[in-house]
Amino acid sequence: MGSITSERIRVRYGETDQMGHAYYANYLYWFEQARGAWCRARGFTYKQLEERGFFMPIVEAHVRYRGEVRYDDIIFVDIHLAEMRRSAIRFEYVIRNETSGATTTEGYTWQVVMGTERKALSIPDGLRELLNREPACAATE
Amino acid sequence: MGSITSERIRVRYGETDQMGHAYYANYLYWFEQARGAWCRARGFTYKQLEERGFFMPIVEAHVRYRGEVRYDDIIFVDIHLAEMRRSAIRFEYVIRNETSGATTTEGYTWQVVMGTERKALSIPDGLRELLNREPACAATE
Amino acid sequence: MGSITSERIRVRYGETDQMGHAYYANYLYWFEQARGAWCRARGFTYKQLEERGFFMPIVEAHVRYRGEVRYDDIIFVDIHLAEMRRSAIRFEYVIRNETSGATTTEGYTWQVVMGTERKALSIPDGLRELLNREPACAATE
Amino acid sequence: MGSITSERIRVRYGETDQMGHAYYANYLYWFEQARGAWCRARGFTYKQLEERGFFMPIVEAHVRYRGEVRYDDIIFVDIHLAEMRRSAIRFEYVIRNETSGATTTEGYTWQVVMGTERKALSIPDGLRELLNREPACAATE
Repeated sequence: MGSITSERIRVRYGETDQMGHAYYANYLYWFEQARGAWCRARGFTYKQLEERGFFMPIVEAHVRYRGEVRYDDIIFVDIHLAEMRRSAIRFEYVIRNETSGATTTEGYTWQVVMGTERKALSIPDGLRELLNREPACAATE
Repeated sequence: MGSITSERIRVRYGETDQMGHAYYANYLYWFEQARGAWCRARGFTYKQLEERGFFMPIVEAHVRYRGEVRYDDIIFVDIHLAEMRRSAIRFEYVIRNETSGATTTEGYTWQVVMGTERKALSIPDGLRELLNREPACAATE
Repeated sequence: MGSITSERIRVRYGETDQMGHAYYANYLYWFEQARGAWCRARGFTYKQLEERGFFMPIVEAHVRYRGEVRYDDIIFVDIHLAEMRRSAIRFEYVIRNETSGATTTEGYTWQVVMGTERKALSIPDGLRELLNREPACAATE
Repeated sequence: MGSITSERIRVRYGETDQMGHAYYANYLYWFEQARGAWCRARGFTYKQLEERGFFMPIVEAHVRYRGEVRYDDIIFVDIHLAEMRRSAIRFEYVIRNETSGATTTEGYTWQVVMGTERKALSIPDGLRELLNREPACAATE
């Protein structure tokens, strides 16, 4: 539903494995970095959400690895908010490998919104407004 | 389809994040460790497969995080071979948290079998025999 | 000064990099796992220390990488308490690679003892007693 | 001896641990990222070195953790080449936390130059010239 935010990442040496590609778990770190960029593009940070007592742990993750991502490659993680329910949201991700020119990866994650007692909340209006924002000059960075 | 192999893992401090639980990417490391144990329980190692020219990169991963996994918890990753196709296999995983008593996580991964030229292969008979083995006293360790 | 505790670890695929060895940062995870084992061998856990309000963040780490550690290798991390000061302790580590037969790595870490306000503490007598214990049948596990 | 190159990094959520700071092993990933930036600032990449048959595994690492690095902090890793011997070089690192304003970390790493047979080499003149370069407009990126 929402607009796409794009996060540029250079692949670290330590993110490869002996097969010569990025190890499959590292994509989840890149998805997380993209979620942080998605928030900042909308004028807030995930850190601020936690400071206000909102936590958004991952309850489901899915990744389809189609192509190669190698050391020192520049990748772009395109992220958008795909779905919002009463107390959960889903992000979708596409990774484009700028170095190889290929779209290499697709995935999604479900996050549940929790309060300080670590129980699922109905997403409150104020938070819903933030999540529905369009990216803007409002970026904090 | 196949029998279950169970791998015991103690959660490392560095596997937690500031929310106080294991970070979501680390489950994919534990799944990998369980795949290694699954092979050893059947009398071979994934390392040997690579030495013989077989590579099994992950092409899809899915994880459902239901419960908490914390520092120093003992978890068991129950893994079984759920599906075998012409050139790909699928493992299913269930994580039981011995410390909390809860079943916390479910997931699966698809692996493609590749040769030294890094192209998908029809799984050869010799390899198919290894993958269809029952766990036995034959364990290498 | 203290007795050695030995922690056995099998190297994960995701701990290697494209050079074919374990990536240099992962040794610090193994040192941490060995510190946890060192505590358990003495009848307590690091987790319990944190629950009682003691935190022991690392303030210095040193590693000398002499030999190769590869995927699926079995390594032993030999750890002992080498030094105790007013509010800090130093562990020394030696990694023996059982698979290759070589002693591959040496290192040390300094930890500062902090209280819940995250300030350095004089190590209290009760904690000093725990740290000076000999490993025993008293292990919690 | 050489000029400083500065690499800007935003700390990932997955790089924190339950103490609320960046886990101590992650600094070695950041040092590595800074080494990559150091090369690029001088008109080549570490990837190219490996493609030409030069490998520079770490043989020693030292880190002094003085201050806090937290999730979402912006840090700068200042790296310079501190020493060059017959077949090894040493980089020094200082991490400045832009978010907190503090200099939080100091460290160094020794790298040995190896050839394709994975034996230490006298650093050849061509490589020595690259390593002695000043950063310039010549950056590849």
